[in-house]
Amino acid sequence: MKPMGPLPPEFAGQSGPLTIAGVAATDWAADTPVFVYDAAIVAARVARFRAAFAGIDLHYAIKANPLPALLERVAPLVDGLDVASGGELELALAVKPATAISFAGPGKRDGELIGAIRAGATLNVESEGEAERALRLGDELGVAPRLAVRVNPDVELRGSGMKMGGRPSPFGVDAVRAAALVRRIVAGGADWRGFHIYAGSQALDAGAIIDTQAATLALAERLADEAGHRPPLVNLGGGFGIPYFAGDVPLDIERVGTALTAAVADSALTAAGTGYAIELGRWLVGEAGVYLTRIVDRKESQGETFLVTDGGLNHQLAASGNFGTVVRRNYPLALARDVGGTPIEAVSVVGPLCTPLDRLGDRIGLPHADPGDLIAVFLAGAYGATASPAGFLGHPPAREVVAG
Amino acid sequence: MKPMGPLPPEFAGQSGPLTIAGVAATDWAADTPVFVYDAAIVAARVARFRAAFAGIDLHYAIKANPLPALLERVAPLVDGLDVASGGELELALAVKPATAISFAGPGKRDGELIGAIRAGATLNVESEGEAERALRLGDELGVAPRLAVRVNPDVELRGSGMKMGGRPSPFGVDAVRAAALVRRIVAGGADWRGFHIYAGSQALDAGAIIDTQAATLALAERLADEAGHRPPLVNLGGGFGIPYFAGDVPLDIERVGTALTAAVADSALTAAGTGYAIELGRWLVGEAGVYLTRIVDRKESQGETFLVTDGGLNHQLAASGNFGTVVRRNYPLALARDVGGTPIEAVSVVGPLCTPLDRLGDRIGLPHADPGDLIAVFLAGAYGATASPAGFLGHPPAREVVAG
Repeated sequence: MKPMGPLPPEFAGQSGPLTIAGVAATDWAADTPVFVYDAAIVAARVARFRAAFAGIDLHYAIKANPLPALLERVAPLVDGLDVASGGELELALAVKPATAISFAGPGKRDGELIGAIRAGATLNVESEGEAERALRLGDELGVAPRLAVRVNPDVELRGSGMKMGGRPSPFGVDAVRAAALVRRIVAGGADWRGFHIYAGSQALDAGAIIDTQAATLALAERLADEAGHRPPLVNLGGGFGIPYFAGDVPLDIERVGTALTAAVADSALTAAGTGYAIELGRWLVGEAGVYLTRIVDRKESQGETFLVTDGGLNHQLAASGNFGTVVRRNYPLALARDVGGTPIEAVSVVGPLCTPLDRLGDRIGLPHADPGDLIAVFLAGAYGATASPAGFLGHPPAREVVAG
Repeated sequence: MKPMGPLPPEFAGQSGPLTIAGVAATDWAADTPVFVYDAAIVAARVARFRAAFAGIDLHYAIKANPLPALLERVAPLVDGLDVASGGELELALAVKPATAISFAGPGKRDGELIGAIRAGATLNVESEGEAERALRLGDELGVAPRLAVRVNPDVELRGSGMKMGGRPSPFGVDAVRAAALVRRIVAGGADWRGFHIYAGSQALDAGAIIDTQAATLALAERLADEAGHRPPLVNLGGGFGIPYFAGDVPLDIERVGTALTAAVADSALTAAGTGYAIELGRWLVGEAGVYLTRIVDRKESQGETFLVTDGGLNHQLAASGNFGTVVRRNYPLALARDVGGTPIEAVSVVGPLCTPLDRLGDRIGLPHADPGDLIAVFLAGAYGATASPAGFLGHPPAREVVAG
């Protein structure tokens, strides 16, 4: 048997039939496949963040999960929403005032810039060219655009799943050019909102995040000095990871919070009135989602047992190991009617797609399972439904429901 | 500069502004991003197959590209359509009689089996359990189901991009159990349609395909003897690859055709009336598609030049190297207004998604390009639009048009 990742804490203690938000998985799964998102788990993560990060704003990066029914639940709990496209901007404006919305991402089209400027959302500009377009469009619209400068930092986030700093990057402007861009933006008549500095994602090492945040604060101070303008807000990015695989240790966010609170208190920018935000996506919603899929067939081939389910990589690409991972490892899975049951056999859980890539569990240990049983794939709350090729092979999309 | 794969032959000879089906790329790209599929290239591939494979039926595996407007053009050119879901079955039935349609794929739901049985399409059964469900549902419907047996062969296809034989597999029944399943199906009153034996995909080595096809023919003969029933059809699968990357050499299908024609002529099954089919997806349509995306921004970071385009992995996941590949390599790309122009600088072509995964070209050599210019990503006809996470980050879907 190959190992699986750990179940999220809200599910790890269960035994017998799986419940989500106090309701049996079988009740959620009248139609399969289905994503169930437990809003109470998201609220618990928000509360944990609030307790650890006094005085730091919390933004939700909605790309992690933009389901409108979930956004309605998350928006009142957070201070801001970060969006990455015109489509996400529309979703965010439905649940949050524009002044609490910032829009990052390379290659924003003119139409997207216009939408954000008209609405009054903050644009995190990713290049000098984009800044010039935003200034020109603001002039044409007769609106001073709210612009923050995204900075490609000199530092990388050690141990992060995706590094976004310390290297050539399509995101932001290099730190050496950031102060000049701030001056240009201010001179151009924009409402300068501050810096957006994002060094990586999916990090589990508190020490690495602490070092990166300290370097980010120092960088923001230095850039403010160089620019001669104090940033109203420094968005420190996020990068808080969740454990997906065997051996992953959960991030100690309290340690990060203690260090950041102290570092912020020491900063000259803070004394002058600068605020700070952390933007989180995966860490807030990833563990809140469970993907439930029904076993359609059970078969043997050359000594290996396959459980064939009605959903697969068309809904949960990352769990199949085909999205941004080099070595395929198993997400945590369970037989929904016997969570924590003794694994008595090694089985491979495969989806219905006619491709060998469609494997949700590779020789994992489970209790005996038969057609009709439900398989739960955990960690399905972030980068699941929208980050998967839903149209692939013409199967129906998965349902998505918010529980709790 | 890092190498790119070769342009398909229809485009490799062009210089100056790119044309697709005789029309300038700029004319196709009034709105971007857009996939343009040249039906004449598909027709040329069909003609090449026909010339090389006398007496062998040609099936189109529509999972490669199920766009209805393309299906309408392909269906009259081929002898059959292979589908992989109930959704694809509906698309196929719109353009081809049910008797020319076969439905493969693990984990078919009861509703999918019923749809195929009612319509009169052939089900390639993937397990004993699925066969029993099909027989039972046929009884309930009062229709003898048309059933073929998919066999997990003992042999693998050497050098194929995805191996689907010679190992434990969710596809088909192991060869040692296939004859028993044929007898059960015939005894159960089904209309037995033959064998489906698929050993791998995306192979460029003619010798490997020839060996696999010979082994497949021998296996079909042996299984027919064991079962005591002659298969009306042996579907030999496909596996014909196209060159994606630098150094890839196109498959010599004429050599494969010569060998298969001779092998089929020698087979006792042929003398008794068995027919043969090859199912192709990627090889028929992959080179016919071009993805056109417009440069929105040009930026420098730490010595690297980035061209940021309005489309990316949300439409062309495979080109970003995030779908079934371990090592990222460059697809062929071109600056659409100067195909074959001298590469004067190394640039990275990245999409608009706020993730480092969204890279269509990594330090490729191109003529100088600016915002407003079009980038052409070739080999976009198969496993493009439908095999990508179109909803990711909330950008609009790409348009798809059929040319020629």
